[in-house]
Amino acid sequence: MPSPPPDWVKALKPSGPQGSELLAQERAQSNINIDKLSELLHTKEALDRQQKMLSLLEPEKVFDKSQNHTLGRVERLQRSLAKAKRLQQLAEENQWSMEELHAANELIGEPTPYGLHASMFLVTLREQGSPEQHKLFLERAAKYEIIGCYAQTELGHGSNVRGLETTAIWNQEDQTFTINSPTLTASKWWIGSLGRTANHAVVMAQLFIGGKNFGPHPFVVQVRDLKTHQPLENVYVGDIGPKFGYNTMDNGFLLFNNVKIPHINMLARFSRIEKETGKYIRPALPSLVYGTLTWVRSNIVLQSGGVLARGVTIATRYAAVRRQFQDRDAEPSAGENQVLNYKMVQVRLLPLLASMYALHFTGRGMMKLYQENQSRMKAAASPGQNSRGPGPEELRAGADLLADLHATSCGLKALASTTAGEGLEVCRRACGGHGYSSYSGIGSYYADYLPTLTWEGDNYMLTQQVARYLLKSARAVLSGKAADNDTSRILKTYLDRRDKGASFDVLEEDKDIVEAFAWRTAHLTFEALKHRDAEKRSWNSLLVDFWRLSTAHSQYLVVRNFYEAVSSPELAQALDPETKTLMHALFRLYALHTLEREAAEFFSSGAVTVRQITLTRTTAVMKLLDEIRPHAISLVDAWAIPDWQLDSSLGRSDGKVYEDLFRRASQENPVNDLVFDPYPWNAAILKNEAPKSKL
Amino acid sequence: MPSPPPDWVKALKPSGPQGSELLAQERAQSNINIDKLSELLHTKEALDRQQKMLSLLEPEKVFDKSQNHTLGRVERLQRSLAKAKRLQQLAEENQWSMEELHAANELIGEPTPYGLHASMFLVTLREQGSPEQHKLFLERAAKYEIIGCYAQTELGHGSNVRGLETTAIWNQEDQTFTINSPTLTASKWWIGSLGRTANHAVVMAQLFIGGKNFGPHPFVVQVRDLKTHQPLENVYVGDIGPKFGYNTMDNGFLLFNNVKIPHINMLARFSRIEKETGKYIRPALPSLVYGTLTWVRSNIVLQSGGVLARGVTIATRYAAVRRQFQDRDAEPSAGENQVLNYKMVQVRLLPLLASMYALHFTGRGMMKLYQENQSRMKAAASPGQNSRGPGPEELRAGADLLADLHATSCGLKALASTTAGEGLEVCRRACGGHGYSSYSGIGSYYADYLPTLTWEGDNYMLTQQVARYLLKSARAVLSGKAADNDTSRILKTYLDRRDKGASFDVLEEDKDIVEAFAWRTAHLTFEALKHRDAEKRSWNSLLVDFWRLSTAHSQYLVVRNFYEAVSSPELAQALDPETKTLMHALFRLYALHTLEREAAEFFSSGAVTVRQITLTRTTAVMKLLDEIRPHAISLVDAWAIPDWQLDSSLGRSDGKVYEDLFRRASQENPVNDLVFDPYPWNAAILKNEAPKSKL
Repeated sequence: MPSPPPDWVKALKPSGPQGSELLAQERAQSNINIDKLSELLHTKEALDRQQKMLSLLEPEKVFDKSQNHTLGRVERLQRSLAKAKRLQQLAEENQWSMEELHAANELIGEPTPYGLHASMFLVTLREQGSPEQHKLFLERAAKYEIIGCYAQTELGHGSNVRGLETTAIWNQEDQTFTINSPTLTASKWWIGSLGRTANHAVVMAQLFIGGKNFGPHPFVVQVRDLKTHQPLENVYVGDIGPKFGYNTMDNGFLLFNNVKIPHINMLARFSRIEKETGKYIRPALPSLVYGTLTWVRSNIVLQSGGVLARGVTIATRYAAVRRQFQDRDAEPSAGENQVLNYKMVQVRLLPLLASMYALHFTGRGMMKLYQENQSRMKAAASPGQNSRGPGPEELRAGADLLADLHATSCGLKALASTTAGEGLEVCRRACGGHGYSSYSGIGSYYADYLPTLTWEGDNYMLTQQVARYLLKSARAVLSGKAADNDTSRILKTYLDRRDKGASFDVLEEDKDIVEAFAWRTAHLTFEALKHRDAEKRSWNSLLVDFWRLSTAHSQYLVVRNFYEAVSSPELAQALDPETKTLMHALFRLYALHTLEREAAEFFSSGAVTVRQITLTRTTAVMKLLDEIRPHAISLVDAWAIPDWQLDSSLGRSDGKVYEDLFRRASQENPVNDLVFDPYPWNAAILKNEAPKSKL
Repeated sequence: MPSPPPDWVKALKPSGPQGSELLAQERAQSNINIDKLSELLHTKEALDRQQKMLSLLEPEKVFDKSQNHTLGRVERLQRSLAKAKRLQQLAEENQWSMEELHAANELIGEPTPYGLHASMFLVTLREQGSPEQHKLFLERAAKYEIIGCYAQTELGHGSNVRGLETTAIWNQEDQTFTINSPTLTASKWWIGSLGRTANHAVVMAQLFIGGKNFGPHPFVVQVRDLKTHQPLENVYVGDIGPKFGYNTMDNGFLLFNNVKIPHINMLARFSRIEKETGKYIRPALPSLVYGTLTWVRSNIVLQSGGVLARGVTIATRYAAVRRQFQDRDAEPSAGENQVLNYKMVQVRLLPLLASMYALHFTGRGMMKLYQENQSRMKAAASPGQNSRGPGPEELRAGADLLADLHATSCGLKALASTTAGEGLEVCRRACGGHGYSSYSGIGSYYADYLPTLTWEGDNYMLTQQVARYLLKSARAVLSGKAADNDTSRILKTYLDRRDKGASFDVLEEDKDIVEAFAWRTAHLTFEALKHRDAEKRSWNSLLVDFWRLSTAHSQYLVVRNFYEAVSSPELAQALDPETKTLMHALFRLYALHTLEREAAEFFSSGAVTVRQITLTRTTAVMKLLDEIRPHAISLVDAWAIPDWQLDSSLGRSDGKVYEDLFRRASQENPVNDLVFDPYPWNAAILKNEAPKSKL
């Protein structure tokens, strides 16, 4: 690493006022109780856990982050495996809970090669394996004696799982399966932890029995030798190469040349083959399988608030430290203005600040609903354990709710991850030139997050599920067979009131804002229904309408969830009245800013008037920006993201932005060890032998 | 590098139909003459030049691209300097023109450490240096005997050039300047080619004479020794560290501790100091200086079409090769559908396809206008050379036009670079999972392009310049002192017709589409004027309105330029009638898709009715997608981007997407040389000594 700067450089300070002074001033001007708000958001328990993990991880050299942005992929991957191993050792030494391991991973802030083993491999074995399979695979996997991954996506097939090409043919004669890749496009692809790390894989393959295809099923297949870690015979496996982000993960490919595996290797909790007869036994509880993806998507919604919070924390703090130009209407003697005072900056950052709260509360609401329903369903499904338990009717109501939750989770996953992903980039750009530096802490985090917009259902594909569900609900409402849920309610309300028209007072009444969003969803639903059922338009020609519909519905859900959260007794109890008022302002900012951006749909559905939209834009949103501005720093402080996790010069909680940018550039940057020969006629790049950088 | 795959893997093919067959089918179904269209876009001369450069560069090992995405920054920077040196050698050997060097750089497709020397350093010396300074600096720089950069931005100041902190104090006693960095935030920052490469810099510093500040001026300062390449005394210089992209460039920092430079080192073409008296001589021709930035921005507009074309070419070709799901309304026997047939994909890609044409023609229009005016101004300014030349009146008209061009270029730079940058990311996402692979060829290109949204005027900041100009023009129109240009014309038309209201037939008449865009600009201009002049609202409170106004005006300019281009006799002459019709369809798609996205402003200004907007969305745009779809591949083929430049498995012109992804992952990926020890209890990462990858 470069030698320290000379004394005359060390003596220099940033021109005043200093960043630390500006942030102190920001914190002094807001009276909200940050600790209370933090606890409401995360719980005291989670905050303590984060603190404990931080004190364990930060001092360890192996978790050092300073070279994350300079190293090539080979080195980064090796370092990341070292982190993952050390984390696993710490987890065993300290008997960490799942929550603690999760918190530690969050602090480290990069995917590691154990990622898919610790999540999808273990989860799939647990949820889809029989007790015998738990013994054989899960117990060893939990102890890391076997390391696995989840191999579904193929080179030629992502979203369309039914189209997978890998085959698993049942051989009755020796009671085995033959796993095969008939084409190049059948190669498994994108499989996390498979490239260099896993020695086992859960492989999704088309099950064939006696020539008949029973669709994709999960099989446990060993792919590498447990001792030499070399690929087994007739297995071709490797890493798929560099990516836009996620380069500390070894996403892999995998091809099979007629590899035989025993009967026990087909995961058999839900569907299975009778060993002796080769008879296929159908899944017992399809709706519970269905539930897992709903859970995964709800989790993405919950996390999206935190993802966005990282970008917003960085950009908002830096916008309070950074000063540029005088206000055009200010006295000539005024100094340069904090960038956060400019309306053009506020209008980009503060609605995202509101969004991170909105998505957080929405994710929470979803998880709660999901868990309640899941326990109810489980109870209903096992009446033996509870002789007076719920009967088939309750089971049906549970299934209805699950269908609603499933659609909800699809739409919200798409909206939330798009909002978070695109929001991070808005934050990066709001930091001006320095946002482009890796030391901003946004760019690589954004690049690592982007796959979330594609995986667990591509955000565009998912919108079809939502539309299909809304059309079905609308048909049920029209035929008087509506399920008892909120979706039916908003559709009915619209039908009842359509002739009278809407007259929502979105500028004065919070409840009316929620109703205006509901109205727009219902209007778009019945429009789409007319196109499909009455005008018989093709599904393909309606995809754009469906995407709009799904977005509209999901925005309604966020607005409703946010409204319910800020109006809840829990919130009123946890927060002082002023902070509660501020939460309402955030709700209104999220809702009205969204309404304004989607203005065309709101007025063409008749939910609001053109005049209301103009007032929203020119007056209401501007007032909310003024109202929230003084508390901006407190509102990001309350999210309580440790500096070590942010890993950002711009977002430091102490405001020492310029000192830190300079320290890292001059002291942590191995490029400064190079001495170039700059002249084109000298082919040599380096002057003499430049000292090798020690990374 | 990894050993080749076993024979059973080599024998595998993608499932059919093959990508090559699908692209052949696409090309067969379109009858447009691709060569004619290519020549219209680029000229025959430029296409030949590209081909010549390609045949020179592609075979040379030094320009190999295969490891661009895997290497760490230290290695990438060294390789990039090697490329830059080799390019310079080739340029000298072959006596390349500027156009040829530029074409070669485009093909290589990454910034190199010579980048700022070859552009801003040489340009600034040429344009701002006196003949004596040309001899002293420019001649040596042109021969690469000195290597330089342009040091304006500082750690604490980007957009606000007036706020720069570096000082240059004139010392009358020894007729020198003292260059100094009084604070840490005065450090020059982001300076391309400075980090490791340059030995000279043009430093922008506040000129002080006798204690009085004359504002920022350019000074040539040597920063490194010409032999040892070590920093000179009292100069602290280095690389600013890793970035989101642009990592093959050594953006640098620079601090001075009272460094003395001679009088000759202040660039003196426009303003200068009389050596003997210390008297400051004002700039002679400020409007010509003003012109350089206009030229730079116009160039960004022109390039933005080509930038977008890379993403659109890749995504469109891959969408023709990739098949996923059956069409929901298709016969059960139908195979999977080409992704490009889905309306949700078309509505994302085809408007971008239209945009790349729109921006290209707009950039061309701008450049033409700029060059015409520049020659006119030069002629007018030197009446001595042409005794019957234009007088002061023409000079004034030229200055008026330049002011219009300046504002135009600010707004269009912002719109064009935002469209291109965000468009690339839309293209990447439209490629689904594989878009995230570095082998898609989009991600790193996007990351390298992003600074364009911030430099040469931050895209948000620039919109104030446009608004200021439009307000000024509106005031002039109202007071009867309008300049004779298009901006005045559209403002007057609006005023004349405002009471009658507009009735533009945007669905049937192309000319009316242009007028509707003009109407919206004029409406927003007078609204903003009312807020500022009548209601006396603060500048800050109007920034969001100004940004909208600038965007609206710039969209009008693109629509107008595109319309003029597709209606021009040149185009009619160059293309057959069918291709011409297709160009009109692209114009309508760009315009109507934009109109629909900005619907709220169009109806609230009264430019169109709500019914027209609904029809635009549900009918007109959908029909245009159908009309353009069969020609999509031909329209990207016509852009004629060589495969070597695209460097994309997904965008290959032969359609061999899956073969290439597989080849690169298995054969060009050094990660596959590693053999991990996967168990957490073994601290070692690698099994034995894994073979070292040879990069």
